[in-house]
Amino acid sequence: MAEHDALTRERILEAAEDVLRRFGPQKANVVDVARALGVSHGSVYRHFASKADLREAVVRRWLEGVSAPLKAIVAEEGPAPQRLKRWLDALVTTKRSKRVSPDKELFAAYRALFDESGIAIETHVGELARQAAAIIEDGIARGEFRPVDPDETARALLDATTRFHNPAHAEEWSDPGIDASYEAVWRLVVAGLTV
Amino acid sequence: MAEHDALTRERILEAAEDVLRRFGPQKANVVDVARALGVSHGSVYRHFASKADLREAVVRRWLEGVSAPLKAIVAEEGPAPQRLKRWLDALVTTKRSKRVSPDKELFAAYRALFDESGIAIETHVGELARQAAAIIEDGIARGEFRPVDPDETARALLDATTRFHNPAHAEEWSDPGIDASYEAVWRLVVAGLTV
Repeated sequence: MAEHDALTRERILEAAEDVLRRFGPQKANVVDVARALGVSHGSVYRHFASKADLREAVVRRWLEGVSAPLKAIVAEEGPAPQRLKRWLDALVTTKRSKRVSPDKELFAAYRALFDESGIAIETHVGELARQAAAIIEDGIARGEFRPVDPDETARALLDATTRFHNPAHAEEWSDPGIDASYEAVWRLVVAGLTV
Repeated sequence: MAEHDALTRERILEAAEDVLRRFGPQKANVVDVARALGVSHGSVYRHFASKADLREAVVRRWLEGVSAPLKAIVAEEGPAPQRLKRWLDALVTTKRSKRVSPDKELFAAYRALFDESGIAIETHVGELARQAAAIIEDGIARGEFRPVDPDETARALLDATTRFHNPAHAEEWSDPGIDASYEAVWRLVVAGLTV
């Protein structure tokens, strides 16, 4: 009983991530995760209705791990152009760090899960766009940015930098010129935003 | 003998493209192409030293089919911002049209060939960047664009619009919002370029 009380959603999701990392995306099912935790699969089913439910929760948790630290930057003080750059740097750095060892297997596993979780991804991109739009809106209010449409411009900013944070381009992230390319795109984009 | 005289590089490449379209990228080899032409493989070897040589030539020809019409736009008269937009529209439209039926199989076959032809791709991107740089340079001379670095900015423009012309994103090209997204990125980028 004590064991079941301690079996939180969070503990299950941690175990699921560990199973994913060690055995690949095919293995993120309820039985494997229950085995890793040393509990019955019935115990896991008390928290997750199905394998699809568990997999979706694993993806959501990973995406929240990307967007939560970015949220803090949105709330920072100071000029919006620099804040937007810090925010974008953090997005690019987080996505990039998640693909390097020891998380390379995990990143690959998540990519496979992402392909089946279209809705979770769209929610994630929507959340990122809202964060960028908040900084852009603030920059307009501060007289630092032109009076653009914040939502449309936030999406355009994410689209324009897709090569640097979209996992579809992960293999290019070790190119020697990738940082210079990113800075050149940023300069082009910020020039279009600032007054 | 007459048959051999008529066997030009161009005829072989056309046959190779047809073989590719019908049988997939694994089949773009000298023997299959010779069979399709009704000639001996020795005849084909007079024009292409190896299977790799033939495949590389097929990729180059396809890429030239993309970049040649764009080159004409570079030489057009009139304001550089509009010319740059026409050029980019043509790039996006060509890439997109090449993936729709009846060329969908061919597009998929080329993607597979591209993955093994890193150098041909880099040459192609370099050629596109030079074309865009020429328009940007002209725009600076005409006083329409800020005095940016034309080469760096041309690369940044290609990077910023990668979602709309890079085959890695081909599956997104049928999204209902893709045209609006492209126009939003263009507006952001051109605002950064114009005086």
